[in-house]
Amino acid sequence: MSAKLKAVTYDPITNKLTIIDQRALPNELKYLTLSTQDDIFLAIRNLAVRGAPAIGVTAAFGMAMLGQQLQTEDPLVFLKRMASVCECLRQARPTARNLFTSLEQMMLVIQNDLSSVKEMKKALIYEALRQEKEDETICKAIGQHGAQLLSDHDRVMTYCNAGALATSNGYGTALAPVYVAQEAGMDIHVLACETRPVLQGARLTAYELASSNIDVTVMTDGMIASYLRQHSIKAIFVGADCIALNGDVANKIGTLGLAIIAQSFHIPFYVCAPSTTMDIKKLSGEDIPIEMRSASEVRNLWYKQSMITEQAHIYNPSFDVTPSTLITGIITEDGIFQAPYDFRRYGHA
Amino acid sequence: MSAKLKAVTYDPITNKLTIIDQRALPNELKYLTLSTQDDIFLAIRNLAVRGAPAIGVTAAFGMAMLGQQLQTEDPLVFLKRMASVCECLRQARPTARNLFTSLEQMMLVIQNDLSSVKEMKKALIYEALRQEKEDETICKAIGQHGAQLLSDHDRVMTYCNAGALATSNGYGTALAPVYVAQEAGMDIHVLACETRPVLQGARLTAYELASSNIDVTVMTDGMIASYLRQHSIKAIFVGADCIALNGDVANKIGTLGLAIIAQSFHIPFYVCAPSTTMDIKKLSGEDIPIEMRSASEVRNLWYKQSMITEQAHIYNPSFDVTPSTLITGIITEDGIFQAPYDFRRYGHA
Repeated sequence: MSAKLKAVTYDPITNKLTIIDQRALPNELKYLTLSTQDDIFLAIRNLAVRGAPAIGVTAAFGMAMLGQQLQTEDPLVFLKRMASVCECLRQARPTARNLFTSLEQMMLVIQNDLSSVKEMKKALIYEALRQEKEDETICKAIGQHGAQLLSDHDRVMTYCNAGALATSNGYGTALAPVYVAQEAGMDIHVLACETRPVLQGARLTAYELASSNIDVTVMTDGMIASYLRQHSIKAIFVGADCIALNGDVANKIGTLGLAIIAQSFHIPFYVCAPSTTMDIKKLSGEDIPIEMRSASEVRNLWYKQSMITEQAHIYNPSFDVTPSTLITGIITEDGIFQAPYDFRRYGHA
Repeated sequence: MSAKLKAVTYDPITNKLTIIDQRALPNELKYLTLSTQDDIFLAIRNLAVRGAPAIGVTAAFGMAMLGQQLQTEDPLVFLKRMASVCECLRQARPTARNLFTSLEQMMLVIQNDLSSVKEMKKALIYEALRQEKEDETICKAIGQHGAQLLSDHDRVMTYCNAGALATSNGYGTALAPVYVAQEAGMDIHVLACETRPVLQGARLTAYELASSNIDVTVMTDGMIASYLRQHSIKAIFVGADCIALNGDVANKIGTLGLAIIAQSFHIPFYVCAPSTTMDIKKLSGEDIPIEMRSASEVRNLWYKQSMITEQAHIYNPSFDVTPSTLITGIITEDGIFQAPYDFRRYGHA
């Protein structure tokens, strides 16, 4: 098996934060070094790094890196500067819960220890590395739970990219069951929906699975129903950007339609997400803010030639909400949960 | 109102057949002159002209034009040569019923009158012009029936392009109700789904509606469910490539998913098609052959930059089948039909 892709890497010795520029994939595997607050903000905003867990870990590493750069010896000045960094990075994207969870946890560790700037800097590094490690542990656990649903030669469908590239480890969330099944010697075939407008399924999921020698077929998003009508698949696995108390799931735009179609064909539909994606202060999907993104993403076909008349308006929300009634199970590091959902156990936020 | 677009034009005096090259839209309004059997075959196969009724009329005009070019005076030789042209054009695309209906009707008029090649050539021209006129009459009638479902300021959704560009007249099928409503002074807003992989909704529907000063919003195919969950629309109108005896409808890939989603939100879903789209020898959708097209359409984003790894397979059927149970009504020139469908009345084929 090829080495798994690492979307985000931080070296505390050199204080260097590096990401794969996912906008260039699959045509080029290009790395970006992020050195400033603007670099981090723009990398998240402009989708150089994307996927809720990867965004969270990038923000945490970003806080650690910017912390090391600060020149002050005054803990209160340090705290104030880091709060301002945190406030900036929070604005990068509005839906992914993990961004906020990560940043809040980073702020907590320095608020709790104001003894010296040196200790605060160290605490930021430890916390960011802890989050990275936790992300990996969680993703492996999700993979182990999900892989129990699979048998050799199964076909599964996924949407967008919730794989290695969407996390800080080689497993991902929705693809973790597939990678764990592969490690157990199973041959799984993945159906990847291209996921317009930004084409994460076509560009990223197909690329990372093929890089790991997992067989993958890409289809356009409009082909899902036709495919499911004619082929039998074991399950659908998707990721999540935010999960409300009642199990409503915000995920990449198109997930809701996929869930409706899956239900009509009686295909099990699983959401795979770390508990850091839960926001129990959101009682239902109605409370989750949905990011609206630039029309150019739809109009220009992945930043290239324009293909829609200038006179047409564009509808371009980045996510939708799938009600928990359409979800067969939600797989976290703690197991597979089923309706009625009540995620009060994840009241850590 | 701007002049409506004419996808295909034939001048019997100069024997000149001209189409809009729809592959170049919306960036360029380019016309192609078709002079040979290969020209016509490739224009249909490669989507320079597309849309079931436009394909049918183009094939009819093509037969008329190629007939005029033939040098023989022997009716049986003429018939044999035209049968060979007919057989070639039949192979251009497998799903659209109108292509076969048109060609069969063209062959019938010369089989029925073997008196002289001169008369046979004339008969081909008359029949092709009759089909063009019939297409217009039918589309206007569909528009009038469909417009009765609409009120001022309604929003309707459509998929792919079943408008002026998909027929030989300025009305189309699924967009005919919108154009007729506009003529009646109504202000209708159209939601156009982009319709990957060939983007007929984004490139063609948005272009032709905007050219006619009708307000249009484009969304990616994955955004449909999210939109319908949050906005109220009056109805969905789509076209058809082939309709079976029981009302099952083959139409552009993605139609089935749209119908499933529409039903889940209780949105009326109408198929608009001329009776020439019916094939009562097909008892149900199971009998309709579905064209599989080149992977490059999915992989290369409308013939431009490749965006999917070469290692991924591609699933690229051009159409899907929507069972009649998901269809609120089928609108033909004869009115609005509802389940249980029995199209034996259209046993003309």
